[in-house]
Order: sequence, then structure tokens, then C-alpha cells
Amino acid sequence: MTKLRVAFQGELGAFSQQAIEQFYRRTADPVPCQRFDQAFAALSSGDVDAAVLPIENTLHGSVHENYDLLLKHDLGIVAETSVRIVHNLIVRPEATFSRIRRVASHPVALNQCLDFFTKHTNIEKVVHYDTAGSVKQLMAEGTREEGAIASDLAANVYGAKIVKKSIEDDRRNFTRFFLLERVANPVRRPRSAGRKQWKTSLVFTTRNVPGSLFRTLGVFALRDLSLAKIESRPLRGKPWEYLFYVDLLAGADDPRLEKALGHLTELCDFQRVLGTYFVV
Amino acid sequence: MTKLRVAFQGELGAFSQQAIEQFYRRTADPVPCQRFDQAFAALSSGDVDAAVLPIENTLHGSVHENYDLLLKHDLGIVAETSVRIVHNLIVRPEATFSRIRRVASHPVALNQCLDFFTKHTNIEKVVHYDTAGSVKQLMAEGTREEGAIASDLAANVYGAKIVKKSIEDDRRNFTRFFLLERVANPVRRPRSAGRKQWKTSLVFTTRNVPGSLFRTLGVFALRDLSLAKIESRPLRGKPWEYLFYVDLLAGADDPRLEKALGHLTELCDFQRVLGTYFVV
Repeated sequence: MTKLRVAFQGELGAFSQQAIEQFYRRTADPVPCQRFDQAFAALSSGDVDAAVLPIENTLHGSVHENYDLLLKHDLGIVAETSVRIVHNLIVRPEATFSRIRRVASHPVALNQCLDFFTKHTNIEKVVHYDTAGSVKQLMAEGTREEGAIASDLAANVYGAKIVKKSIEDDRRNFTRFFLLERVANPVRRPRSAGRKQWKTSLVFTTRNVPGSLFRTLGVFALRDLSLAKIESRPLRGKPWEYLFYVDLLAGADDPRLEKALGHLTELCDFQRVLGTYFVV
Repeated sequence: MTKLRVAFQGELGAFSQQAIEQFYRRTADPVPCQRFDQAFAALSSGDVDAAVLPIENTLHGSVHENYDLLLKHDLGIVAETSVRIVHNLIVRPEATFSRIRRVASHPVALNQCLDFFTKHTNIEKVVHYDTAGSVKQLMAEGTREEGAIASDLAANVYGAKIVKKSIEDDRRNFTRFFLLERVANPVRRPRSAGRKQWKTSLVFTTRNVPGSLFRTLGVFALRDLSLAKIESRPLRGKPWEYLFYVDLLAGADDPRLEKALGHLTELCDFQRVLGTYFVV
């Protein structure tokens, strides 16, 4: 059985790769891409079998860029998972914590560990392009006085050692990831057996008249369909017009879903189903 | 007339300082803070007269951290403005573009200028903690072969020179900022004369029963109050319970607003008005 090739953005050891492991255990080969649009392009062109992309974070909000790319490509969401962003202090195998003087990571990760740096004033922050990449560089050319902040997967991938686990200030830092496939050409999916929770993600625009969102949500509420997410996004250049992102708690076998989507076409200028998928 | 002291997160020359200029022209002294929570604390304690904080970005979504801090502190939103994120290539005054070999900035800014780096393969990307800070460092200890990517304000503040304007890949990159003041102790505000657009921002949680959001939005729709934003945010540890962020197109003198807020208390477990404010 050949392994599936699954694209993600970042270096090996990134949190996105951890999401791939949550979807596939060890049965997929992660394919790193520098940019989100390269991961989408690799999947659209058939270079890879699937792609795993972040869609929102509990501290930093929705990744609008990936919603835009979902609308641009003909791909479907087939599963979602959430990864807790745990930042670990990682050093070379021969190093000890007491000797560490400089710690490198992406500025966003460094900023999520400020309590650690406030407590350890003898340790200097060093910026790096990427969290996992900072571990890669540490192992390639670092010293025993240097550390990096990244996932435990990154420590594993590059053969480094975790000396302090979970040094992030806020433990409520989760990123939600979508697993995408080509709509026309489904491949072997993660097993959905026993998965109880299904969702359907939609994007739509309403007509710019008072109460239009209220009427649109009536399409779901009047059928007792529950929402798991709603978010408006202004359309640039069109003041007071919006895209809406909605996640419904409904699977493809729910007869209310097709009815609701039909009803929605009566009220919306544009609508698109991004996928019906299960939660891993 | 003593100048107002206005806190913001970042170094002098940050996009947040540009928002301060949009609010106050040159009549305020910007006070840099390292962290968002420090800007909130400086305002709460009376160290500064106001604070300007980013609340959402068109590419990166809502800054949930600042929504959390708004709920934690007793401050009010008194105005909003939007800043277009324009990235410029900035060099030392004696430098010329053809000699530049290394360009420093925050990784997020570098990643928003990838087309530029793809076109100029002889220029290396260098990561820095902060966009404006990369200009500060360039002027303090840089060479004629080095550049930085930041706002035109940063070039101005540090006496550097812009050699390429607007090198960002996506021109639809805007950040929305709130101007905050202490609720109990209002100070001299930016002039609102002639401002036509007022907004009111709310946070609320609904009871976890089917159709509860629909009924809640009825509070506004049945009074013809328009929404300028809606966003759900999962409450961690409480599956399927949400905070909702809603912006209404209504000012304090709108009689429907008080009625709607009263009606909302019948349907919500928790609600809070973050402020009624005008758009600059």
C-alpha cells in the first residue's frame, strides 16, 4: 500500500504536520510547502493526494487567506481536527537547561511564551522564520547554549531534546485544521467509522437589504439545524456587503440539509458548500 | 494644551501609531508598549489617556486576545479607524536599491512580500522581531547593503528612505483599530463633528438551545437595526457554547438601541456593550 502524499504549509515538524498525524496516524507522507497557495496548487494539480490547512485559531481568529483559496480552487473539506498549540523549550541532546542563553523561534511563538522569558531574564529571545525551522537550524549548526521553541513533533523529527514542556502563557491556544481533497477524485480517507459529529461548511453572500442575514439564518433555525460557527467578512470595495462563513452541525445524510441549501438559493446572491465532513 | 498620551503595542513607527495619527493628527503622544495587555493596563491605571489597539485584519481575522482584554478591563471604545497595511522597502539615506542584498522585517511582513523576493532573487530575507523595529535597527547599526520592510511612518520616524513603495502582494490588507478610553473618566476625544457613521459593539452568550442565535438576531432585525459584523467564538471547555461579537450600525441617540439591548437581556446569559463610537 503506497502512502498518501499530504501537503501542508511549513517545515517538517510544524503544527500542521501534527494535524496530518491526527488524521492519518503514520500512514501519510507529509509534503512541506512554503506558502498556503502552494499547498492548494499541489493538491489541485494532482502532485499530492490531500492537503491539511489551518482555518482558525482560538487566539488569532480565522485564516481568511485559506477561505479565499478554498473559493478559488475546486477542492472539498473531508475532515477537521484541532491541535493544541503546545510550545516546548527544545535543546540539543547534549545540552542542559542551566546553560541555555539564547532561544530562537517565530516571533508569534516567542510572544506566546513571554512569562517564561520574564522569569528567565538571562535567556535572550532570537527571532527565526519558523518554529520547527528553529529546531532544524539548532540541530544543524547550533550550540549547547542555544535552544528553540516548537512542537514536540519538531523535537522528534530533528532528534532534539525537550527540556521544558508547555511553556506557553495561554493553554487555550488551539488551531483548527481542514483536510482537503480533490472533489472529482476522492482517495482513501481517514476512517470515519464511529464518528458521531458531522459538519457542513458554507460560504454565502446575502442581498444588501435590512434583515437579510436574519432571514438567511431562518433557513436553518426553522429546520432545527444548529450552527457551529458564523462569521461575517466585509467584501472590500463593496461597503456594507459581506461574505458569511457558516458551519452547520449536519452531515450529507441529513434530509434537512438539502432542503435548507435549496431554500438558501432563494435568499442569497452567491453560495457555495465547502464540504461535508467529520470531526477527528 | 498638554498632549494626550496614547498607548499602543509595538515600536515607534508601527501601523498602530499610524492609527493614532488618523485619530488625532499630531495632537497625541504615542506611548509604545511591548504587549497588548500592557497597553490595556497603562490605560486602566491612568498612566495614559487613551489606547489604540488592533481588533481585526482583512487577511488574518479577529484579534481575539484584544476582545478578551476588552472583557477583562472596564474601558470603552470611543472611535474606530482602518489602516491599509502598506509595506515599503526602506534603506539608509545614503543607500541605493541596486546595492541592497539583505532585507529585514517581521516574518508576517516578509511573507506578505513574497512576489518581491521572487523577483529579486539576489536579496536575502532576514527575520526581525518587529516591522518598525527593523528600520530602527537598520539606522542604528545597518549598512548600505541592508534594507527593512515597514510603514512609511517608520521610515519617517527613524530618518530612513523609502526606495520601493507598496511592495506587498495583496493590497486588500487592512487592519481595523479601536480607540479606547476609561469609561469613568472621558478625556478630550477626536472630533466627531460631521461623522455620519456610528457603531455599537456588543459581546453576548446565548442559551445553548436550538434557534437561540436566530431569536437573538431577531432583536435587531425586527427593529430594522443593521449589523456590520457578526462572529461566533467557541467557549473553550464548554463544547457548543459560544461568545458572539456583534457590531450594530447604531449610535447612542438611536432609541431602538436601548430597546434592543433590553430585549437582548431576555435571551442572553451574558451581554456587554463594548462601546458606542464613530468611524474615523
